[in-house]
Amino acid sequence: MMLFLLLLTLCGSLTQISAQYDPTWDSLDSRPLPDWYDKAKIGIFLHWGVYSVPSFGSEWFWFRWQGDNTYTYVKFMEENYPPTFTYQDFGKEFTAEFFEPEEWANLFVKSGAKYVVLTSKHHEGYTLWPSKYAYSWNAEDVGPHRDLVGDLANAVRQTDLHFGLYHSLFEWFHPLYNEDKTNNFTTSTFVDTKIIPEMKELINTYQPEVLWSDGDGEAPDSYWKSTEFLAWLYNESPVKDIVVTNDRWGSNVGCKHGGFFTCADRYNPGHLLPHKWENCMTVDKVSWGYRRNAVSRDILSIHELITTLTETISCGGNILINVGPTKEGTIIPVFQERLLQLGEWLSINGDAVYESNAWSVQNDTLTSGVWYTAKEPVVYAIVLNWPDDNLLKLGSANSLFSTDDTQVVLLGNDDSPLSWQSVDDQVNIAFPDKATVTSEWAWALKITPGST
Amino acid sequence: MMLFLLLLTLCGSLTQISAQYDPTWDSLDSRPLPDWYDKAKIGIFLHWGVYSVPSFGSEWFWFRWQGDNTYTYVKFMEENYPPTFTYQDFGKEFTAEFFEPEEWANLFVKSGAKYVVLTSKHHEGYTLWPSKYAYSWNAEDVGPHRDLVGDLANAVRQTDLHFGLYHSLFEWFHPLYNEDKTNNFTTSTFVDTKIIPEMKELINTYQPEVLWSDGDGEAPDSYWKSTEFLAWLYNESPVKDIVVTNDRWGSNVGCKHGGFFTCADRYNPGHLLPHKWENCMTVDKVSWGYRRNAVSRDILSIHELITTLTETISCGGNILINVGPTKEGTIIPVFQERLLQLGEWLSINGDAVYESNAWSVQNDTLTSGVWYTAKEPVVYAIVLNWPDDNLLKLGSANSLFSTDDTQVVLLGNDDSPLSWQSVDDQVNIAFPDKATVTSEWAWALKITPGST
Amino acid sequence: MMLFLLLLTLCGSLTQISAQYDPTWDSLDSRPLPDWYDKAKIGIFLHWGVYSVPSFGSEWFWFRWQGDNTYTYVKFMEENYPPTFTYQDFGKEFTAEFFEPEEWANLFVKSGAKYVVLTSKHHEGYTLWPSKYAYSWNAEDVGPHRDLVGDLANAVRQTDLHFGLYHSLFEWFHPLYNEDKTNNFTTSTFVDTKIIPEMKELINTYQPEVLWSDGDGEAPDSYWKSTEFLAWLYNESPVKDIVVTNDRWGSNVGCKHGGFFTCADRYNPGHLLPHKWENCMTVDKVSWGYRRNAVSRDILSIHELITTLTETISCGGNILINVGPTKEGTIIPVFQERLLQLGEWLSINGDAVYESNAWSVQNDTLTSGVWYTAKEPVVYAIVLNWPDDNLLKLGSANSLFSTDDTQVVLLGNDDSPLSWQSVDDQVNIAFPDKATVTSEWAWALKITPGST
Amino acid sequence: MMLFLLLLTLCGSLTQISAQYDPTWDSLDSRPLPDWYDKAKIGIFLHWGVYSVPSFGSEWFWFRWQGDNTYTYVKFMEENYPPTFTYQDFGKEFTAEFFEPEEWANLFVKSGAKYVVLTSKHHEGYTLWPSKYAYSWNAEDVGPHRDLVGDLANAVRQTDLHFGLYHSLFEWFHPLYNEDKTNNFTTSTFVDTKIIPEMKELINTYQPEVLWSDGDGEAPDSYWKSTEFLAWLYNESPVKDIVVTNDRWGSNVGCKHGGFFTCADRYNPGHLLPHKWENCMTVDKVSWGYRRNAVSRDILSIHELITTLTETISCGGNILINVGPTKEGTIIPVFQERLLQLGEWLSINGDAVYESNAWSVQNDTLTSGVWYTAKEPVVYAIVLNWPDDNLLKLGSANSLFSTDDTQVVLLGNDDSPLSWQSVDDQVNIAFPDKATVTSEWAWALKITPGST
Repeated sequence: MMLFLLLLTLCGSLTQISAQYDPTWDSLDSRPLPDWYDKAKIGIFLHWGVYSVPSFGSEWFWFRWQGDNTYTYVKFMEENYPPTFTYQDFGKEFTAEFFEPEEWANLFVKSGAKYVVLTSKHHEGYTLWPSKYAYSWNAEDVGPHRDLVGDLANAVRQTDLHFGLYHSLFEWFHPLYNEDKTNNFTTSTFVDTKIIPEMKELINTYQPEVLWSDGDGEAPDSYWKSTEFLAWLYNESPVKDIVVTNDRWGSNVGCKHGGFFTCADRYNPGHLLPHKWENCMTVDKVSWGYRRNAVSRDILSIHELITTLTETISCGGNILINVGPTKEGTIIPVFQERLLQLGEWLSINGDAVYESNAWSVQNDTLTSGVWYTAKEPVVYAIVLNWPDDNLLKLGSANSLFSTDDTQVVLLGNDDSPLSWQSVDDQVNIAFPDKATVTSEWAWALKITPGST
Repeated sequence: MMLFLLLLTLCGSLTQISAQYDPTWDSLDSRPLPDWYDKAKIGIFLHWGVYSVPSFGSEWFWFRWQGDNTYTYVKFMEENYPPTFTYQDFGKEFTAEFFEPEEWANLFVKSGAKYVVLTSKHHEGYTLWPSKYAYSWNAEDVGPHRDLVGDLANAVRQTDLHFGLYHSLFEWFHPLYNEDKTNNFTTSTFVDTKIIPEMKELINTYQPEVLWSDGDGEAPDSYWKSTEFLAWLYNESPVKDIVVTNDRWGSNVGCKHGGFFTCADRYNPGHLLPHKWENCMTVDKVSWGYRRNAVSRDILSIHELITTLTETISCGGNILINVGPTKEGTIIPVFQERLLQLGEWLSINGDAVYESNAWSVQNDTLTSGVWYTAKEPVVYAIVLNWPDDNLLKLGSANSLFSTDDTQVVLLGNDDSPLSWQSVDDQVNIAFPDKATVTSEWAWALKITPGST
Repeated sequence: MMLFLLLLTLCGSLTQISAQYDPTWDSLDSRPLPDWYDKAKIGIFLHWGVYSVPSFGSEWFWFRWQGDNTYTYVKFMEENYPPTFTYQDFGKEFTAEFFEPEEWANLFVKSGAKYVVLTSKHHEGYTLWPSKYAYSWNAEDVGPHRDLVGDLANAVRQTDLHFGLYHSLFEWFHPLYNEDKTNNFTTSTFVDTKIIPEMKELINTYQPEVLWSDGDGEAPDSYWKSTEFLAWLYNESPVKDIVVTNDRWGSNVGCKHGGFFTCADRYNPGHLLPHKWENCMTVDKVSWGYRRNAVSRDILSIHELITTLTETISCGGNILINVGPTKEGTIIPVFQERLLQLGEWLSINGDAVYESNAWSVQNDTLTSGVWYTAKEPVVYAIVLNWPDDNLLKLGSANSLFSTDDTQVVLLGNDDSPLSWQSVDDQVNIAFPDKATVTSEWAWALKITPGST
Repeated sequence: MMLFLLLLTLCGSLTQISAQYDPTWDSLDSRPLPDWYDKAKIGIFLHWGVYSVPSFGSEWFWFRWQGDNTYTYVKFMEENYPPTFTYQDFGKEFTAEFFEPEEWANLFVKSGAKYVVLTSKHHEGYTLWPSKYAYSWNAEDVGPHRDLVGDLANAVRQTDLHFGLYHSLFEWFHPLYNEDKTNNFTTSTFVDTKIIPEMKELINTYQPEVLWSDGDGEAPDSYWKSTEFLAWLYNESPVKDIVVTNDRWGSNVGCKHGGFFTCADRYNPGHLLPHKWENCMTVDKVSWGYRRNAVSRDILSIHELITTLTETISCGGNILINVGPTKEGTIIPVFQERLLQLGEWLSINGDAVYESNAWSVQNDTLTSGVWYTAKEPVVYAIVLNWPDDNLLKLGSANSLFSTDDTQVVLLGNDDSPLSWQSVDDQVNIAFPDKATVTSEWAWALKITPGST
């Protein structure tokens, strides 16, 4: 008996090196978020699946059509398909014949993003990898005849990007899920024979650094066996030391437990949060999946994109920028262009973003559209609109300008410091001739406080 | 203790009414075959599935193409389909738009068959009913968008026919099966999460009177958990009192245990067996599934069909006659014609078939093509070829002709007895003018021995 | 002037060898029908085209659907196709992947037919050969990607069969035709730029021995320029000496002018006609094109087919027996079987058919179902039903039995003559034991009158 | 005789009002180009057809695949389609289900273009209108089931835009064309029965204001009967007074006769031409038809587009900017964005473009990227790059600055004149603070010379 206790104690010591988590939120929440994630700041989100075939309305196409019978979707099907058509029939046309994962990875690198999150399976249940648990409803059996997850994983890993996977817990029309649901989630056939084995297969096979869970909202964590799964993920899985997850692990969990918080889609609180969070948002304002009939005005302008990014980073969030690939396996030019513009901007202004921290103030009280980040003692002010008369007036930066040797430079200008003047609670900073500035769309000031 | 024994005794009495079987072959084999089956004699077998779409070669199309890469199949695909085509892509074209189950049932009634066995799932894994365990690979989700099993069950039950279901245990390409197989069947994920639940769903939903098992041959009964399942089927299922099964329940089981024996496809031993058996055979000599390019010479003639039927029944077997419906849901005219011809023949000669027993002799020693059945004391001789000079010479029927008042009539003639003569070990029977006989293709003599 | 007359006279002499016909019916009708046609008696008619794809209702599918909007057709389309579907969209699925013209030719030879007539173009306008005048609406450009006419012509010419082509003058939906029609046929753009060049292309390329015209009924011969075309066909075309045509050359022409008369579909007058005629009829009672949902009772029995053949031949007609091939390029087994049964019958009874003439009487006045043909002095009586009591009573054959040495043999029996008795106006012929007769379904007596 | 001459004289007078042109180039070339065209300056070109379905490589897809067997095209087909696939099979998928012509017209108005030219028929021969001369190979019969030409014409005519049509004379694979070609163009069946009637149908039905001919290059004008057709077009057609045509009317015609000259695709000579010309170019640098796999770097930047436009207009050309719509009927967002950016630029700088003339100098000798246009006496200088140090140095504008009261304003700035200085042969113009200027990408100076 004594020996046994001794061993327990020894093991306890070992877990201090590689901690052993219990399947409780108290224990799981105590795990520190792996370092790389907060530093990365910017990720690319990819919604790709059979919904990319009708490519109409949104990735919720199936549910809109046959779940809640939304008029425009029902009409679209009536006008263009035979009455006998099923959603699964779209699968055949998910061809991906132009999918070149290296080109995608290249584009993401150029965009300035540091990680990628692909929908390995959305609510439709179709898996983008050849899952043993989705026979005849996966990308190997139906459609591209190819392991899309594996192919993208390989390509992304040729670069410095981190590779992550989105995974939906529920499936709108899976009969085993609906059976459990009908039973008020007192049974768990779906979770036991499908979801848990499937997630483990996914983790073991592709070793993602992000597991971005979704589709949890109809049932509590106890149904999903989330804490048990996360204990496995953190204790035993091949990615136990590097993986980050989010908070969508049960109707009672979101914004409360888990890894980073996502809370809601397009979550952008505008103020600092006490817990690491992520703003997942999408370049097509209307949809996460590709829409064939998207028009120019639906697409975020680069200024809108940089604005959202700036607000998010300043408030301590990461931003996960979504584009929906096509059924052919391409990312359409307007999305490419937006990502490349972002990359151009970040190549000049990235210092104000990557590895930065939230500052004591998030946005300026005097001039709207000015947001702060920090790498103490340096502070960055990102200015979303060129100041009138080339004079920027700051109301929240006084503390940085208490000595005369505080230096201000505009990223993407030459290194010559800008002249500034502190008056009462206000600091006025003189911007250079705009014609000589290389940054477009938004500008970042690097403020190095003088020695006091 | 005494009370307990008492209860056991009481239960023992009850089980005489509804026996409780153990999951052992000894116990299961002790169950008497429900009565209706042996009386019925003739069933219709239907091979219908996604293979009805390529409708080329046979219902083993998928395996020939992508399992053992048979040249003609590979070539067919190369010449007619894109390289990216998957077997599942055929599913969409399994339309069944002309499927009228009442018309089928009608046809089967007219054919003289007494039961119907439909392939609810063949080795491809596609289920003809909306199985919870075959999401997106069943007839509701892919193809006809309809419960084919249920629709046919309802139609058949409007008639006097018994309704049965074929079910394949193994699936060529199911990843969970192949995982178990790779593990030398030491794991049983496939059986536990797929096969057993699926069979119970099938039995509970459609209450078939035949469960025709197949696809067992790669693994023993212990892997398939066959005895456990059959104990459930015989003890608890809604069809426990009426269902018959066959013997394909494990590589070690066929022709040894179970309900009726099938032993091999087209099993036709030519002699009496000590155990009830069935000859499953097919009107297209080459294939069980429909072949679009079948030619006339591939189709059994009505004489060949009646010959096989006669041999089978005389030896104590049932015959299960297969026709393969088309992807459109029709049974092609030549199959209809053959079944209707059979029905015509049975409407005259059915007395010699239905509810008959094997006689002491199966076929005549003197004249080939003469087979006996019996409803003691009456004996029937089915004569497959019109006798030369209208005189039939029998070498095995002497015992019936020991007194002069033995009467012989030809079914489908008028009732006037035929004249006969017994010489030594031989009986000569004078056939009437063929021009006046209504039966075609084969003729049955009803021999009523005189009182001795 | 004298010289000119001389030349004319010389030419006149030459035309006695190869006559020059004027574009008038008087002149064209004076052309003797090439010999081979009347001797051949039996042809196979093939309706094959894009209508073989929907394969529903009949070869008039397109018109029923979009011309007169017949309910069942409209409903079929609504239930199974998207609203945007056009008839031309069916073209892609006219695959003919199993088309083996040698097998077809073989089958036709075995059927006992002596010529074949294929629909080179039906009212839909789609040409089964790569016509220069039907760009993108022919079998090379759309569907089989193959010259179906040429391929069948080659195969048929490997045998002793004559090769013929059906051709429709009008096209339901051709805009140039409908323009001419709207102009009350006062314009002829359609005929000038499409029909005449197309028919010449067809004749020059494939040199058919039958040109079976159809679709003439909405306009007179003057619109179709029929006499001009036929003058070319008879005077200049490569088949001028051997080609036969029918009478469908204008609304005012049918049953009056041209080659053999067809008068109406399934034309079977039941009495002798003064002009060579043809009964075109179809084994599927309901349709000329293949119907996927044809049922057994729609198909002519072999007895019905032999009956129609017998009636037709006895009255001086040829019979053109239609089967509709499938879109895959097969002739379905039940059609094969019927043709092979016919061939079997003809192999015994062909002497009563081929090269025969009508006799003075067509059918017997006393016993119905007895039809006569003749190769004077021999007369054949084809008996469609086995006579009661094996005794055939003829009321119209007296003249043949005026001397005792008239011989009667039953084809397919041995050669021993049948006994007969002439009483008053009636002849009684004793049939042999049916069990010894090889012919099934109908029987032919060869009556060789004695020397008077 | 005298009377005849008198009449001729009278007619001669009348032709001054509505001239009668002879079918000779001398006469046809004497027709003045209708006024509106030169004023309009900017048109939108739309390449849309069945090639929008494979949407791979370019609108020459068919020829690359099956004409000259270019490897990438052959490989694309081998990898993604069955060997039996024909180009016409693509037609079915030309669905245009999202085609909203009013939205297109709206976009074109916003782009600042003044006319639209749609490919009514490209070299594939497929007509976007229901032509009587392209039965079963037009947008009504195959694909969208809709009159695309008519629908766009109607929508465009709701706006101030002029509507024009592109039309290809030759068709790669039309058998009648290839027959004429094989005959060295000594026959003209294709032109007589197809091309001329088709063009007249097009003109009469849609009354386009531009007829943009193409595909003439393999044969001379005599084969195409171009001068006869143009005489009809200019003398008799419903658009005789307003239609403009180009110069692609025969291998011997381009850049020599006809309406405006196009000479070559992307024709941009860089100097003034003595004859009105047009630069047709395309926003996707690689293709005129939509390519599904186009990437961002293939798309002209807005600066490149404005540069080409500026060069073209300055040299007296019109610009015809091509975008390729998709098979679904959309114009993809990146094309929309480029056109809207152009419209934004023209809304500020349009005065320098529309209704302008070439000036005596086309581009500045001192500063590259400065191009002139004129509305005498006003001259515009379009400046493609913001000048260094905000100081523009002109070497070719001296003549305008001979008096001090010459005024220079920057379009899109406020109206305050810019200060300038003339030194020797050079004029220096001081640009305002760039931060206050509304125009992006390029800037136009309006130079109003002082009174001398």
